[in-house]
Amino acid sequence: MPPVIAFVGKPDCGKTTLLEKLIPELVRRGLKIGTIKHHVHAFAMDREGKDTWRHKRAGAQVVALSSPTGLGVIRDTTGDPAVAELAARYFYDVDLVLAEGYKHSDLPKIEVCRRAAHEAPLVGRNDSWLALVGDMPEVGLPCFGMEDIVPLADFLVARFLTTSDHPRATLVVDGQAIPLNDFVEQFLARAITGMTDALKGCGQAKEITITICPARHADC
Amino acid sequence: MPPVIAFVGKPDCGKTTLLEKLIPELVRRGLKIGTIKHHVHAFAMDREGKDTWRHKRAGAQVVALSSPTGLGVIRDTTGDPAVAELAARYFYDVDLVLAEGYKHSDLPKIEVCRRAAHEAPLVGRNDSWLALVGDMPEVGLPCFGMEDIVPLADFLVARFLTTSDHPRATLVVDGQAIPLNDFVEQFLARAITGMTDALKGCGQAKEITITICPARHADC
Repeated sequence: MPPVIAFVGKPDCGKTTLLEKLIPELVRRGLKIGTIKHHVHAFAMDREGKDTWRHKRAGAQVVALSSPTGLGVIRDTTGDPAVAELAARYFYDVDLVLAEGYKHSDLPKIEVCRRAAHEAPLVGRNDSWLALVGDMPEVGLPCFGMEDIVPLADFLVARFLTTSDHPRATLVVDGQAIPLNDFVEQFLARAITGMTDALKGCGQAKEITITICPARHADC
Repeated sequence: MPPVIAFVGKPDCGKTTLLEKLIPELVRRGLKIGTIKHHVHAFAMDREGKDTWRHKRAGAQVVALSSPTGLGVIRDTTGDPAVAELAARYFYDVDLVLAEGYKHSDLPKIEVCRRAAHEAPLVGRNDSWLALVGDMPEVGLPCFGMEDIVPLADFLVARFLTTSDHPRATLVVDGQAIPLNDFVEQFLARAITGMTDALKGCGQAKEITITICPARHADC
């Protein structure tokens, strides 16, 4: 599961503009980047009149548009999906996820704040703030200007993209991420890798996903 | 993983119109329905100018729009994603997936064909054809009129939504579904359910998903 960093700030602080500059710099370094836009208003993504839009309107809970160059999936949700679940299910093959929003979460955060638009940063609400971007430096936190894209990318890579010697495992049950301590994570990862390594096509796996529907609900 | 049925036919045969009638009839029966539109032309789903559209244009490989009522995910693909992978990853909580297209696949198929629009059905290319819908009955196959929505829903439910006493497991490695024989499927399902049952939050699971990144590629 890739690390997720939340870019937060008051409305119109420049989060999307910053990401439009930061994403190409990270891609230039060979990284695969994902993004999540956290949206609290009415959901709309598909184009009206398209076949997937018609399927959804007819009552489908999940619709996908699949092509050789792109895939789109739209689904109903009941409540805000957990970021850990999104990261595990949808961002399995990216290196880093940059989120816009989630200022009330415990995700690591970078705040965007500019004098021209705001009186003071949000920073200080809790200790998940990593850095500020803008022209309102905060004592005790790294600060970057809106154009300091290369130093900001250096900071993120150093902080989040160090490698590990251990296998990793994530567990999602009925859509909820289950916290695993180190022992359980290593036990699951090594036991399952041991079971699957002998199967044809699994020997040099970078990522293994297994979905189980126990017999008592075997209608899936 | 839910069953997937492909609705096939020549262009403008009425596939989407049929699905617009069939989906509400299946939903009325308490089923959760997913759809996949197979698209062979240039991919476009998001709305120009939206934040997710800007993230994607800046080079993000996967973008998501997440809200309390809906979730949308758009990603780059290199080649046509396998339907089994789509079903396992994105349709984990629906009962039945209705696909539009995939006439060259080995999915079970229902063909839509109307005299006003076509000279002959496609049927007969292989034995994956289950039924025809339209006004060109084919000897040896069940046929339904374009308005026979209730009998068609009955047919699909009887054919695809019988229950099983066995736990089910699907395995996806680096994006490819790995075929499992009965022994391996039951071994994986029962071994993993045994490991996770004791964890808090896993006792009455309807669906368990575990994602492993082996140590040799522990950068995910």
